[in-house]
Amino acid sequence: MYIGIDVGGTNLKAGLVSESGELLAVERMPLDFQGPEAFAAQLAALAETVMAAGGAKREDVSYVGVGIPGAVRGGEILYTANIPMRNVPLETLFRRHLDLPVLLGNDADCAAVGEWLFGAGRGTRHFIVITLGTGVGGGLILNGKLYCGCGAGGEVGHIVIDRDGPACNCGRRGCWETYASATGLIRQTREAMAAHPESRLHAVAARNGAVDGRTPFQAAQEGDETALAVCQAYAQSLAAGLTDLVNILHPEAVALGGGVAAAPEELLLRPVEKLVAGESYARHVGQVPRIVRAELGNDAGILGAAMLRRAL
Amino acid sequence: MYIGIDVGGTNLKAGLVSESGELLAVERMPLDFQGPEAFAAQLAALAETVMAAGGAKREDVSYVGVGIPGAVRGGEILYTANIPMRNVPLETLFRRHLDLPVLLGNDADCAAVGEWLFGAGRGTRHFIVITLGTGVGGGLILNGKLYCGCGAGGEVGHIVIDRDGPACNCGRRGCWETYASATGLIRQTREAMAAHPESRLHAVAARNGAVDGRTPFQAAQEGDETALAVCQAYAQSLAAGLTDLVNILHPEAVALGGGVAAAPEELLLRPVEKLVAGESYARHVGQVPRIVRAELGNDAGILGAAMLRRAL
Repeated sequence: MYIGIDVGGTNLKAGLVSESGELLAVERMPLDFQGPEAFAAQLAALAETVMAAGGAKREDVSYVGVGIPGAVRGGEILYTANIPMRNVPLETLFRRHLDLPVLLGNDADCAAVGEWLFGAGRGTRHFIVITLGTGVGGGLILNGKLYCGCGAGGEVGHIVIDRDGPACNCGRRGCWETYASATGLIRQTREAMAAHPESRLHAVAARNGAVDGRTPFQAAQEGDETALAVCQAYAQSLAAGLTDLVNILHPEAVALGGGVAAAPEELLLRPVEKLVAGESYARHVGQVPRIVRAELGNDAGILGAAMLRRAL
Repeated sequence: MYIGIDVGGTNLKAGLVSESGELLAVERMPLDFQGPEAFAAQLAALAETVMAAGGAKREDVSYVGVGIPGAVRGGEILYTANIPMRNVPLETLFRRHLDLPVLLGNDADCAAVGEWLFGAGRGTRHFIVITLGTGVGGGLILNGKLYCGCGAGGEVGHIVIDRDGPACNCGRRGCWETYASATGLIRQTREAMAAHPESRLHAVAARNGAVDGRTPFQAAQEGDETALAVCQAYAQSLAAGLTDLVNILHPEAVALGGGVAAAPEELLLRPVEKLVAGESYARHVGQVPRIVRAELGNDAGILGAAMLRRAL
């Protein structure tokens, strides 16, 4: 058995996972960040809790895989994005409380491993998971292994698709993420609403209580032209970055995760797949990547963390 | 011993290569393309010639590696860019004339393998070669292996850096190649010359007999402001695509090949390295890729083709 822990900005989630990828037990707790040592102690306590919940003993568990929102190398956290940690020897700190090997992965990488082994990427050798959320995250399975390069690989949201585009948090302009994230979609929806007071987008947003990543798709389904134009422009932006990735890496499939990926297929996945098929070099070798939805939702992270060793 | 053959649009070049990467003999012949079967016969004849030149027999040679300007899969050519071949079973055709195993690679991939084993990429696990020529070509060494994805990976020239940019042959707009190739540099130099009749670019081009990839760098070294601006804009475009690649793949080093890469370091490699270091996520993990010149020139292709098996 393995333990997988997904570290979010505000919550921790742990799963006890069998050799064949079954989730035997799941436990959650809020992250109460009081520095690296207390963090390691909290992870160890959560691991103990999920073992107890699944009726497992320490000797039954091969290792603990931990998905971190940041960059890792070996048993060390290099940095985290929303939790203040730099160069933290997590495995060493963890083992003071629970003596099990610790494998670390980036959180998007762990989700990619989960989807690759048990979800949308089953049976592939070259597979990419893209998560459309606050930003655009990515995880790369290349030649049947998780690829991280020298530690900061897979930052696919930060490829520039328009050098005159909006400023990105990363310091560049016109990053894919500024267009293709849920945040970018919401900005583009708001801009369309301001320019088109007659659009149904206003009614749909009022009904939902806010403009969110579903608003333009719902209004488009109700026949609104402005919303349809937002959806089409979004599909084009999403396809632009995907085509870049496909031209560089030519995977068998790309899975899209995050709330936006749940949009109606005919408004998002099918147009995007068609655009990528028409523009990428893959068309010349007769093997255009499938563009599919991620299948495992929030479980991908803990399953992938638990199975990290298989992907390294 | 191994034989490596580099197939150019108009010439074939073969090398007999020792286990340790020494070039024991080199032979060239013009490509006289009369269809796939004659092409395979010509390759076999060239292999016989280079064996004879190096005093080797068929039994001394483990295999023949062939670098093809196009996409390959196993022993098959899927398509070639400037020679009319599609789905050609080259290994089968070749062995009718010379019974040796044939390994096929894309030509830029072979050059990357050569640089990785014997040139600018020695000792790395994650390494990228970018060739600045008529287009922008690339070869990827990831996790210590040549990476091709499903056959059309490594088409790095065709990532979009400006979606409103010039039309590219591939069908997209604003591909990196339209800015960062030698062709793109020459276009930008000509545009600057038209806008600035007072620039020294005119005198330098007249002296060289034409505008070429050296013109702006030479005029900049002679103190011309217009030329310096061309060089700076070119460095920024080159860095934009390199930063995309580094954010996706985070290699240890990127080697630049092709004539333009021979530009004075202070006008090209150093500014590009600084831009990439300042913009890529690699800076957050304290390991920014080296940007270096390719070292092997035209021999990279035959050395890499000969050593393909080590990279697969």
